[in-house]
Amino acid sequence: MTDIREQGLKKPIVVAEYLFKRLHEIGIRSVHGLPGDFNLVALDYIPKSGLRWVGSVNELNAAYAADGYARTKGISAVLTTFGVGELSAINGIAGAFSEHVPVVHIVGCPSTISQHNGMLLHHTLGNGDFNVFANMSSQISCDMARLNKPAEIPDQIDNALRECWIRSRPVYIMLPTDMVERKVEGTRLDTPIDLTEPKNEPEREDYVVDVVLKYLHAAKAPVILVDACAIRHRVLDEVHALVEKTQLPVFVTPMGKGAINESHPSYGGVYAGTGSQPEVAERVESADLVLSIGALKSDFNTAGFSYRTSQLNTIDFHSTHCTVRYSEYPNVAMRGVLRKVNERVDLSKLCRPPSPEVANEVTKNRDSSETITQAFFWPRVGEYLKENDIVVTETGTSNFGIWETKYPPGVTGVTQILWGSIGWSVGAAQGAALAAKDMGADRRTILFVGDGSFQLTAQEVTTMMRHNLKVTIFLIYNEGFTIERYIHGMKAEYNDIIRWRYTDVPTAFGGSDKQVRKFVIKTKDELEKLLTDKEFNEAGGLQFVELWMPKEDAPRALKITAEISAKNNAKMSDG
Amino acid sequence: MTDIREQGLKKPIVVAEYLFKRLHEIGIRSVHGLPGDFNLVALDYIPKSGLRWVGSVNELNAAYAADGYARTKGISAVLTTFGVGELSAINGIAGAFSEHVPVVHIVGCPSTISQHNGMLLHHTLGNGDFNVFANMSSQISCDMARLNKPAEIPDQIDNALRECWIRSRPVYIMLPTDMVERKVEGTRLDTPIDLTEPKNEPEREDYVVDVVLKYLHAAKAPVILVDACAIRHRVLDEVHALVEKTQLPVFVTPMGKGAINESHPSYGGVYAGTGSQPEVAERVESADLVLSIGALKSDFNTAGFSYRTSQLNTIDFHSTHCTVRYSEYPNVAMRGVLRKVNERVDLSKLCRPPSPEVANEVTKNRDSSETITQAFFWPRVGEYLKENDIVVTETGTSNFGIWETKYPPGVTGVTQILWGSIGWSVGAAQGAALAAKDMGADRRTILFVGDGSFQLTAQEVTTMMRHNLKVTIFLIYNEGFTIERYIHGMKAEYNDIIRWRYTDVPTAFGGSDKQVRKFVIKTKDELEKLLTDKEFNEAGGLQFVELWMPKEDAPRALKITAEISAKNNAKMSDG
Repeated sequence: MTDIREQGLKKPIVVAEYLFKRLHEIGIRSVHGLPGDFNLVALDYIPKSGLRWVGSVNELNAAYAADGYARTKGISAVLTTFGVGELSAINGIAGAFSEHVPVVHIVGCPSTISQHNGMLLHHTLGNGDFNVFANMSSQISCDMARLNKPAEIPDQIDNALRECWIRSRPVYIMLPTDMVERKVEGTRLDTPIDLTEPKNEPEREDYVVDVVLKYLHAAKAPVILVDACAIRHRVLDEVHALVEKTQLPVFVTPMGKGAINESHPSYGGVYAGTGSQPEVAERVESADLVLSIGALKSDFNTAGFSYRTSQLNTIDFHSTHCTVRYSEYPNVAMRGVLRKVNERVDLSKLCRPPSPEVANEVTKNRDSSETITQAFFWPRVGEYLKENDIVVTETGTSNFGIWETKYPPGVTGVTQILWGSIGWSVGAAQGAALAAKDMGADRRTILFVGDGSFQLTAQEVTTMMRHNLKVTIFLIYNEGFTIERYIHGMKAEYNDIIRWRYTDVPTAFGGSDKQVRKFVIKTKDELEKLLTDKEFNEAGGLQFVELWMPKEDAPRALKITAEISAKNNAKMSDG
Repeated sequence: MTDIREQGLKKPIVVAEYLFKRLHEIGIRSVHGLPGDFNLVALDYIPKSGLRWVGSVNELNAAYAADGYARTKGISAVLTTFGVGELSAINGIAGAFSEHVPVVHIVGCPSTISQHNGMLLHHTLGNGDFNVFANMSSQISCDMARLNKPAEIPDQIDNALRECWIRSRPVYIMLPTDMVERKVEGTRLDTPIDLTEPKNEPEREDYVVDVVLKYLHAAKAPVILVDACAIRHRVLDEVHALVEKTQLPVFVTPMGKGAINESHPSYGGVYAGTGSQPEVAERVESADLVLSIGALKSDFNTAGFSYRTSQLNTIDFHSTHCTVRYSEYPNVAMRGVLRKVNERVDLSKLCRPPSPEVANEVTKNRDSSETITQAFFWPRVGEYLKENDIVVTETGTSNFGIWETKYPPGVTGVTQILWGSIGWSVGAAQGAALAAKDMGADRRTILFVGDGSFQLTAQEVTTMMRHNLKVTIFLIYNEGFTIERYIHGMKAEYNDIIRWRYTDVPTAFGGSDKQVRKFVIKTKDELEKLLTDKEFNEAGGLQFVELWMPKEDAPRALKITAEISAKNNAKMSDG
């Protein structure tokens, strides 16, 4: 006998399956998270929907991993339990919001009946308020879907997933236990969710294109500068086409690193104000027109707001608007504009200044000691990397050091410069590597993380082994929080950490000697041998390198940025 | 030359020092947390104020540890950095809010100038909103102090600390970098913060006392039932005095465990509805009057709301009100009432039914196999424990199993039954042990945690070693999330975990063989030898026991509660 509530449904499907099949449709293959009693029944539907359950080690790591997965595969999902689970994840989700990463956060929560009755359940504040955690998450989500009424659920899910994709930010889906197996209309699944961006109004778009072309044709030394939102809002095809056609010099910001093929003759390096290499700064700052694509001018992305470019020489392209000098064009998204600029640009009118040469400056930075310095290491990494690697860098020495690394083509750069949550990269590397696996791609994932940061989230190495991921971890052993030392307290005890036996960690976490290869590298010679070793380069599974670097050494760009940060923190108001 | 802003101050003191000296004054000796650039300068003042910086391994663990510290020493503090740090800690703080634990959460945040200018700083959402995280925390804090104006800061701090103590819940203090070293009036420190509770209005209090006594003198079989809020709102002296004078049978709830000297002849065991031992249920449910002190009737504290007591036979004593049968008395706090009831009770009119005998039922639960069963283990633990131990139990098999353990006198029970965040106990044990150390007490801290839970927060073992804490960890090796298995998915893969080499974990985390003693215990015999070993009982430092128990075994009370939970989750509305 059909449940009365299913009557009228042509092809009944349970809510959990509807949700998970939609996740599959938009490209998700693995769902991160932990079991909890309010999500257990839902978990039964994950394999049934063609998805893999990751079985993360804790929720914060799961959220970090989902972030890394989305940065690699386009979108991701994390499933937690009410209160305890979701709040453990919230820092990771906030990071995804801050950095424009589309993560679907699904929270298994108490039944609508329990909620209605205000029951004094575990995982609550004991005050009968079941909305408090959703309210917290609403501040870091671009859509909230509380699935309380079966008739509305498919619309809510479809809308949330669309918003997540289009706005490239997290959404929050609250799934009560008594809704998990309620039936909804399955025929809806025959029509894919519409993920197409709204088109610009043509007349308005054409107007902006004309203005852009006017300045571009008139410029004597135009350059392109590519930043985070170009990656996150998926206009890299348009950017590449523009570079290819115009051959204009193209630079990236630290958050834009990986957006551009760095072997392309037009590629000119990393621009971050005073944090740039001098020839890069010179070229960008002397440009009379900067086509700035997807800018996100945060302190660490600009070496402490140290740009010396003028808005009078800048055209900004964003996902929601464009700005030409000081003229703003709301609701004109960059994609359409970039395409038409590319179609209509008159190459005969275009001045094309040369790009500076970019190379991995290994020789220049090699001193006579055996010590592996930051200055030496990062260019050397550039020679070790190969095409299509996924490079994950932790906030700290790594994500500043990587400015000095020239990537081979196809490298995906994964870093969290705006949010900058320490420990994030270990989870993110797991997620990124899993995404590569889910894409069937034979890519190496290479993580650079300091010892201080690694300790926060170390157990995510377990998940890497659980799924046999190809991750090579360079654990920079430099005895503590170096970025903090440079901001304040070089010798302070609070910037010290307890020394772990780092290479024992993967084994303690269950890795067999077959599953994980381990190395301790203390000298340039040892490093050289490792980086040229065939098996190491093949990276068949988990590889763990404890890499000794001096405690008080830091990349050039970090030193500059930290000094500005410290000054900014100390600045006193007159009040 | 004196800064103009210091003029008029008799004894200028910087804000950070004022704050930390106040923390010291109210009993805090160690501050948990991690360094971050927005809190670094403040950290310089921690040792100057007589406090110890813990140097936690991550913020969630720090918050859990602060929770455990407060449960042992009365109050605690955790210091994080803006955005990333505070959000990582928020689940731990929410747990403290839920469970009425006074934790001072101090967040080092960007300068008031940066905030005013809406600067695009790291650790922000990139939207210029510097209040979003404070807004999240406001939902789990009983007071918010945003220290933006020096003239107001001492009042804000004093008020926040008072609220934290009196209401026994977290407070949030936002400390901008440019306020850390601003000067405030130091002479205020000569007057301690007033932490005394407001007194009840005498006439109103007397009225309630009369009503209570009327029912108490009339009752044929009165009992006392002590719950969480009796501990958290610090009325145990009053409760003990009442038990001592009246000799009434006294029971505890699971969350009240540890409140009562379980060797006292009046002690009758753990009451949790159908989760109770039959003779306990019989005695409590046949009582014609239950003096219920500090009740917190959550699902897991009542074995799924399975009390069979009537409100017509109940008098509830709370920190904010009392309720006699259905008559409510708002603003009459329990302390004054309990004291007067104790003074005025007429023992000649009092019926004193006997308490059931409580013993650690080891023999009864010993089967002939060598397997260590849950049924056998927990009573056996009762014989191993000694006076003044601190016993920390994780949500899962441990905090249900411990119902069957009779504590020696002076034991502090630390458990998180309402909030129930897995992994919490590892941090909490660290905090509790540090609190014992700070009190100069030679107490053992004994942690019972399952393998699944341990993995979430394992690195807190590092902090235990950093501070040479005396913690004995019983890691229950039973291959995954047992409480989840009983709720749903006994054989489901999502309730499995990767097997770690658990005894290698403390060593990988830097512990020398001198610092940590390790054991693998698979049989009753081995357990017996361990628990009677002199050195093991002395617990001179960190001890780590991998204890094998069957995968699908669980304590009696867990099975009952999980079944009710599963039913409750599945219950469908008609909608």
